[in-house]
Amino acid sequence: MKLHILGCYAATPRTLTNPTSQVLEIRNHMFLIDCGEGTQVQLRKQKIKFSRINHIFISHLHGDHFFGLPGLISTFRLLGRNKEMHIYGPKGIKEAITLLLKLGDSWTNYPLVFHELTAKTPKLVYEDDKVSVTTIPLDHRVYTNGFLFREKPGERQLNIEAATEYGIEPVYFRNIKKGKDVTLDDGTIVPNQALSFDPKPPKSYAYCSDTAYKPSMVDQISEVDWLYHESTFLDSEEHLSAKTKHSTAKEAAKIAKAAQVGTLLLGHYSTRYKSIVLFKEEAATIFDNVELADDGKVFEW
Amino acid sequence: MKLHILGCYAATPRTLTNPTSQVLEIRNHMFLIDCGEGTQVQLRKQKIKFSRINHIFISHLHGDHFFGLPGLISTFRLLGRNKEMHIYGPKGIKEAITLLLKLGDSWTNYPLVFHELTAKTPKLVYEDDKVSVTTIPLDHRVYTNGFLFREKPGERQLNIEAATEYGIEPVYFRNIKKGKDVTLDDGTIVPNQALSFDPKPPKSYAYCSDTAYKPSMVDQISEVDWLYHESTFLDSEEHLSAKTKHSTAKEAAKIAKAAQVGTLLLGHYSTRYKSIVLFKEEAATIFDNVELADDGKVFEW
Repeated sequence: MKLHILGCYAATPRTLTNPTSQVLEIRNHMFLIDCGEGTQVQLRKQKIKFSRINHIFISHLHGDHFFGLPGLISTFRLLGRNKEMHIYGPKGIKEAITLLLKLGDSWTNYPLVFHELTAKTPKLVYEDDKVSVTTIPLDHRVYTNGFLFREKPGERQLNIEAATEYGIEPVYFRNIKKGKDVTLDDGTIVPNQALSFDPKPPKSYAYCSDTAYKPSMVDQISEVDWLYHESTFLDSEEHLSAKTKHSTAKEAAKIAKAAQVGTLLLGHYSTRYKSIVLFKEEAATIFDNVELADDGKVFEW
Repeated sequence: MKLHILGCYAATPRTLTNPTSQVLEIRNHMFLIDCGEGTQVQLRKQKIKFSRINHIFISHLHGDHFFGLPGLISTFRLLGRNKEMHIYGPKGIKEAITLLLKLGDSWTNYPLVFHELTAKTPKLVYEDDKVSVTTIPLDHRVYTNGFLFREKPGERQLNIEAATEYGIEPVYFRNIKKGKDVTLDDGTIVPNQALSFDPKPPKSYAYCSDTAYKPSMVDQISEVDWLYHESTFLDSEEHLSAKTKHSTAKEAAKIAKAAQVGTLLLGHYSTRYKSIVLFKEEAATIFDNVELADDGKVFEW
């Protein structure tokens, strides 16, 4: 998995900081997660091909997660897109986009498929043979979902040395990866275990923004490889955090610790603080493996 | 007058070019004209104080002139604005903004006053004792207005040398500027003409974007000091220009010449061309005084 941070600051776009948007590369997909104002420029800066994006996941309809979407949809049209674009987001998103397109008499020449969300429990919203995406219900001022991205278990890995030793022709490799045994010319059956290794463990990513501290999410995101959890504030502004239904870095770390995730990725920083390093310092008092998102950064695991 | 070009490129925001937005400084007003995506970041880059903007004029509801407005409205709220904000634009703009605010449950804590436009003839939309703003009906794919900004005639200018010679106290200067005569202690009446100069001629600015070539606008913008006229294309793409209801640099120059404007300012360039200098070269074959808008440029007259 590869995660491109296009923007990870709270509230408004500024000269050097962008509101929320990310691209997750997972098994040949490029999933766009949230789309604050300026996202399309960030996509260009990071040289991400617009044509590779076919699914857009919107957590909630606050402007800093959503106001880049109408422009991006228009740009896809100008770029001559004809493939379907799937948009997952809170109920109301279809009405908003449709109204804006109607007012500009700027209908898309590609199908826009809206998947409007209303469920308050986790819901499988996308699935194919390699990947699944499930909502993570969050607790914010408006209806909000995070998203849990999981790879499905992959094929077994060929033990090329063992296969060569048995004199097995490459034509059988496909079957070995699928877990099948191989019958040699002399009738001997070589068990699959002798010819392959276990598949790589499937990878996972949980995106949780925006949300108040919500310990009930822990079960669902248990042991994910990477957790992006918003940390708008530091503990010193816990009162503001509670009031606005955001989280502190400390609270994000508590969730990461309880869920025993691999890495905690912080973001959605208020710009009131002098340095985002403060967020890492605070979270590190509770959880060891903390990384700081920042616009333009790429994480791979 | 002082005109800040925040963005002047057609279609989509890119890494180095911004969609349409301008700020016109006129008699202590800061009028925002159009508001493509990214306008609020451009305002910050040009260090324009958000609090000085009280009137926003939107030409039409295509995204590259409008999709920065929802975010800007939200940012005004975050900045603690409480003054009225007046928005002038095509009918539908209120419904769009209201829906977006409603979906985010993000109502403004300042009054938003919408002045929705439907008239197909010039309409006075703003007036005070110093300035007037009138729509310029344009011809585009959707309902579109340009805007004509005019100073009203100012006060007479004090002839300080003459006043000193007559021994006139500064307390009378206000009245002199208002055109009044002054009666000296000995009863002599000094006529105003002897103590003041004619007011500076009132300045004017016509903003015309987006529009097809529309010679019927000439009368209304006759002899304006500066005319911003879109030039999306060069004459070599005249067929595209006609089809999309835009103008070529040549057509913009023809309008400028017929209207005998002071300076023609070109903009709304398609990014298909290697250099915007080509637009100036083309226009200059027809009209002498041509300037090129570019993001970040400031013009003063």
